[in-house]
Amino acid sequence: MELTKVKEWLSLMTLEEKASMCSGKDYWRTNALERLGIPSVVMMNGPHGLRKLDEYEVNFDVSDSAPATCFPSASALASSWDRELLTEIGVALGKECHAAGVDILLGPGVNLKRSPLNGRNFEYFSEDPYLSGEMAKAYINGVQSQNVGTSLKHYACNNRESRRMTTDAVVEERALRELYLNAFEIAVKGSRPWTIMSAYNRVNGAYCSEHSHLLKQILKQEWGFEGAVVSDWGAVNVLSEGIRNGLDLEMPSSEGYGPASIIKAVQSGALAEEALDCAVERVLQLAVLSAKRSGQPIDCDYESHHRLARKAAAESMVLLKNEASLLPLSKGQCKIAIIGAMARSPKIQGGGSSHMKPTQVDEVEAAIAAKLGEGSELVYVQGYDLESEAVNNAWEEEARTTAAEAEAAILIVGLPERTESEAYDRQHLGIPFNQAEIIRAVAQVQERVIVVLCNGAPLDMPWEKHAGGIVEAYLGGQAFGGALADILFGDANPCGKLAETFPVDLPSTPAYLAFPGEGDRCEYREGLFIGYRYYDSRKIEPLYPFGFGLSYTSFEYSDLHLDKKEISDQETLAVRLSVRNIGDRTGKETVQLYVRDKVSRLVRPEKELKAFSKVELHAGEAKEIVFTLDKRAFAYYDPELQDWHAETGEFDILIGQSSRHILLEETVNLRSTTSIRRPYDRQSSLADLIADPRVEPIIRQFTQGLSDSQDKHSSEMMAVFIREMPLRSLVAFSKGAFTDEMLDGLLHHANSVGR
Amino acid sequence: MELTKVKEWLSLMTLEEKASMCSGKDYWRTNALERLGIPSVVMMNGPHGLRKLDEYEVNFDVSDSAPATCFPSASALASSWDRELLTEIGVALGKECHAAGVDILLGPGVNLKRSPLNGRNFEYFSEDPYLSGEMAKAYINGVQSQNVGTSLKHYACNNRESRRMTTDAVVEERALRELYLNAFEIAVKGSRPWTIMSAYNRVNGAYCSEHSHLLKQILKQEWGFEGAVVSDWGAVNVLSEGIRNGLDLEMPSSEGYGPASIIKAVQSGALAEEALDCAVERVLQLAVLSAKRSGQPIDCDYESHHRLARKAAAESMVLLKNEASLLPLSKGQCKIAIIGAMARSPKIQGGGSSHMKPTQVDEVEAAIAAKLGEGSELVYVQGYDLESEAVNNAWEEEARTTAAEAEAAILIVGLPERTESEAYDRQHLGIPFNQAEIIRAVAQVQERVIVVLCNGAPLDMPWEKHAGGIVEAYLGGQAFGGALADILFGDANPCGKLAETFPVDLPSTPAYLAFPGEGDRCEYREGLFIGYRYYDSRKIEPLYPFGFGLSYTSFEYSDLHLDKKEISDQETLAVRLSVRNIGDRTGKETVQLYVRDKVSRLVRPEKELKAFSKVELHAGEAKEIVFTLDKRAFAYYDPELQDWHAETGEFDILIGQSSRHILLEETVNLRSTTSIRRPYDRQSSLADLIADPRVEPIIRQFTQGLSDSQDKHSSEMMAVFIREMPLRSLVAFSKGAFTDEMLDGLLHHANSVGR
Repeated sequence: MELTKVKEWLSLMTLEEKASMCSGKDYWRTNALERLGIPSVVMMNGPHGLRKLDEYEVNFDVSDSAPATCFPSASALASSWDRELLTEIGVALGKECHAAGVDILLGPGVNLKRSPLNGRNFEYFSEDPYLSGEMAKAYINGVQSQNVGTSLKHYACNNRESRRMTTDAVVEERALRELYLNAFEIAVKGSRPWTIMSAYNRVNGAYCSEHSHLLKQILKQEWGFEGAVVSDWGAVNVLSEGIRNGLDLEMPSSEGYGPASIIKAVQSGALAEEALDCAVERVLQLAVLSAKRSGQPIDCDYESHHRLARKAAAESMVLLKNEASLLPLSKGQCKIAIIGAMARSPKIQGGGSSHMKPTQVDEVEAAIAAKLGEGSELVYVQGYDLESEAVNNAWEEEARTTAAEAEAAILIVGLPERTESEAYDRQHLGIPFNQAEIIRAVAQVQERVIVVLCNGAPLDMPWEKHAGGIVEAYLGGQAFGGALADILFGDANPCGKLAETFPVDLPSTPAYLAFPGEGDRCEYREGLFIGYRYYDSRKIEPLYPFGFGLSYTSFEYSDLHLDKKEISDQETLAVRLSVRNIGDRTGKETVQLYVRDKVSRLVRPEKELKAFSKVELHAGEAKEIVFTLDKRAFAYYDPELQDWHAETGEFDILIGQSSRHILLEETVNLRSTTSIRRPYDRQSSLADLIADPRVEPIIRQFTQGLSDSQDKHSSEMMAVFIREMPLRSLVAFSKGAFTDEMLDGLLHHANSVGR
Repeated sequence: MELTKVKEWLSLMTLEEKASMCSGKDYWRTNALERLGIPSVVMMNGPHGLRKLDEYEVNFDVSDSAPATCFPSASALASSWDRELLTEIGVALGKECHAAGVDILLGPGVNLKRSPLNGRNFEYFSEDPYLSGEMAKAYINGVQSQNVGTSLKHYACNNRESRRMTTDAVVEERALRELYLNAFEIAVKGSRPWTIMSAYNRVNGAYCSEHSHLLKQILKQEWGFEGAVVSDWGAVNVLSEGIRNGLDLEMPSSEGYGPASIIKAVQSGALAEEALDCAVERVLQLAVLSAKRSGQPIDCDYESHHRLARKAAAESMVLLKNEASLLPLSKGQCKIAIIGAMARSPKIQGGGSSHMKPTQVDEVEAAIAAKLGEGSELVYVQGYDLESEAVNNAWEEEARTTAAEAEAAILIVGLPERTESEAYDRQHLGIPFNQAEIIRAVAQVQERVIVVLCNGAPLDMPWEKHAGGIVEAYLGGQAFGGALADILFGDANPCGKLAETFPVDLPSTPAYLAFPGEGDRCEYREGLFIGYRYYDSRKIEPLYPFGFGLSYTSFEYSDLHLDKKEISDQETLAVRLSVRNIGDRTGKETVQLYVRDKVSRLVRPEKELKAFSKVELHAGEAKEIVFTLDKRAFAYYDPELQDWHAETGEFDILIGQSSRHILLEETVNLRSTTSIRRPYDRQSSLADLIADPRVEPIIRQFTQGLSDSQDKHSSEMMAVFIREMPLRSLVAFSKGAFTDEMLDGLLHHANSVGR
């Protein structure tokens, strides 16, 4: 904290001035205080590019915003699995904010992809908390290196768009801790974002903007978050209640309502002025941090940022299918058909508050044409209408004719904004009907069909068999066209891997039947089992698994070695392996490390991602990868302990190219240093006591003679019956052999042994 | 109630005597009171046959019990879908109890099959509450027609065996009401069982034996249950607490502990004596009811009961597969191999407290031999060892040789008691390894393989392709052998239909990952989606669906007709259709009626069984079936209303041969007469108000002008944003256009309109 200045300001403020600091001046700025020389702090939307408005009022019209670089959206960037790339983009965004006079960029978003239907999934990274957290951390560190702040959002469990402002997400503690909060935790601890944005919705009954458990206890106390908690725009219920429960700043302005509630609450004693001071300090700190940019030179090269956007888009594209090495296409003399309205109106970003104005947009046709040799031909036909689902027979016929005459057909399809945007959820997993139809129609006349997908979240693909090649380009940003050409013609080697599972169909998705929920009540019934945790644990075959992506080269994994066979939960484990490029061109591989708890007291996913590394390898080259795992890689959150707990036992270390392509495997033995003692009582069973090695010798004597019978199976049953009986029932059943007094004595003994 | 006598007795009792009435005299009897001439009431285990012990002490040794008729167990009987048959068996059981001097038979069990792994599933009817309730009702009416009581068990949610005495079943209200309690409700209302047995486990935190909501509020108040609530044996926690919360009788004797707790509680005022009196009355009533048999002649023909057991077993067997009409086998000259230790040690009943001593047991070989013509040959080989999983190579070779030389091979396999019994759960869905191996081995040399399954609950069948015929015989009771011969040779035409889904594998079952739960906590996360409700709603293909079963003939459905196109929820709907036997032999068909709610405010299963009828048809014969549906056939339990609610809207009436073979379909329009008003408040959204036709005209004016923008998609998003915003946020966002005072006025107006 920049405490000196902040404390000084605070000491000079009236109650009214303090209250005003906790609410916006207008739509995009905090309140200034001229009397003390405290400036406004300017916040603008991100996360994949700056949406800078000239005026500070509400304005959803993107045409009024200033141009800035449009990078690929989060679901694309996460597919790069590239921490360095995310930091590089963060740096570029920070520079653009500095150039535009913006202090805080409102991003990144780390809500997990509980259902592929969530309309805002494109703004989020992954279904996995570790990958999400790592991506966010790298991005934030990049932006903030420029003395520009970020706002990690939307804290927490903002996993549906419909009714998001009133929804109550009902989530158990373990799913919160191990999944939904974990992504935030990693980013908060690893990159110290200036702000965190509290979500619109409720979690387990309380609005996120006045959720003491989430804001005060977990975020500020446990994780040591020192930044400001800012409400999502309009997410405040009662501001004074928010401040009391850990919120620091209401945005946007509530026309005086919010500050008035604070003043009233302080005057009535409902809100301690010390609590208000804590919030004001955190808000003031934002001004101090922003001031560090004063006088700093502006170093913002939009051309180089466009090149970075192109690299990022190429690194993020995922090659899902490549039958008979259809890709890369040859640059030599050829005739190529390019089909689909999205080739000329590419979907490069998502709809909603993040929608911004690019500095330039690569033309797909021009980019592809630039790759083709002399005498080659590129023919474009529209194929389908973006604004409807209806098939246009003439266009379909034109597409067939064009495709039939070409040597290959590139179909560009995806999700129009009307089906995928902030504020509403998708209704199904399909692309529009006319787009699916055009794929089928073209495949009838052309064997070499390459489908390029522009969408923010998983699709089902009933048309999948008609495509020889499938490139998942996601929402690729302003350089999508150039990057696509690089990938299609091999100037870039595909290295993206899915950051989310592509399911076969909607009914096989984890939250089906529980998403979106009933009215405002949204129960997270699948618990820990979202994404690959669900598909893997339930043995459901996905269309494309988490972590999957093809390359134009191939890789060999070998020499997995753990530095220890046994560790305690206080030690770290070093995991080494070797990866070799066994193809004939340079490529990048993302090596994934999953941990499987072989036996656990609590139910756990079949395996969980705990480390990954992206490595570039020339043809024939090999490199050693080293991962270091600590307790958290093995731990679950234990609601009884109220802490993370790595149980004593065996854990498999799985190394794979995806969650479903595990290539190497070793086992480590872990020894917990945590001693768990649960008090025994009259409801405890003999089985509970026998399972405790400290108590077992005491209890053994009581079990003898309680069961004997001639009939073998009945006797076994009786033994189970007695073992699982609560101790209080033993008294009633033992005909005086085991009395209430003996029970009390046993409990006293069992509860005191070993303490 | 037989009130006069009961009231008289009660008025003459001391507190100590009353307390003693609420606990057992010994293991199987209530306390007598000689002073007043009150006799003990004798209870003995069922449900598929009487387990009569000569002494009244704890004894799990079945060899000490008296012989009685062993009928097929409940999972078999439910496959008959035959109410008349269940009543007939009930009558027989009642007569055997009367002959043996037993007043109450401890059954039937209507716990639903949440997971196929529950070790006691064989004692329960179905995964569907309606079918379970109907079967129980018919059975109880049969037994009680003989002035012998029943004990409907285990109330409620006793759906796992492991840790059953301490488990807490965490179940939402709708799943309780629509599934788990519904089976009890149907039986209680339709057959007035003398007693209901409270389960060992807890439900939502409270032990079932002291669960006021389950016992007092729902069972006694809502359903009007007038019998006695008896604890499962040893299920009482603190007896005085039980009595206070709706329990009436503790079993077995607790050696004085229980009555002492009652006396103490009454003396201290913790338990009102009136509450104790209510319990005692219900217990005394059992003696009055039992006394009605005094002097009644004993009319118990064990030979005719054996014939009934044979009919019941045949009616319950389900023909799952019959490739190329392999069955029925010809009775002519032939050589048949019969393979499997279970042919000589058939699994005819389950393990545990229900295990009883049959009067006789049909020999499978003899029964089959009796069907064969002159010169036929039947060769038995053991094939596998029942006590282990290990393959015996010599036996396997012998089986192959025998099978190769025969014209058909009948393999009898199933679950030995060590893998399926009361008191513990199954670990997987397979038959023992050596049994699966023998099927594969025999199929290599013999094309005509008929697998007969003896088990109490669903199996997976990785060996399924090796069998041309599969007969699911369940646990067929003492006449299993004869019934099997009748089915195999066509003297009985298979007419059983599965009362539970057979899944492809364990990970695809509804409660997988949530069963058995963690320690004592067992969360019913799948909610309403158990059995076919899960597979159908999730579009998961089962191995064999609920309601499925083949016949040696076939049936045609036609002429579905609803007597009304529109009904109110106060009216009934008559559904008629015609079924014709279009094959060449007499057969029975179970016609199933499912209801599908096309659109619902709350999440509902894809369809639910609401009626069924079993009909016998000669070759070529047709009959009309009539079903009558009332409100409950369309309703869900609404936790807000705390009542059943049939929503206004369209419902599909589906007529099928199984849950997956729907042959006829019609739609009815239902009009609810219930008016649901939810109060609006500051957290209500415009969307909520607009959706209410009474409020919509008032609110419309406020929405105008709140969203306008040049950008089409952003404007749509803004419109959604405003619509879904809580009203309190509109105040902050409207820049004075909508004030707090206006909001209060709007709420007042909206909440009072139409009242």
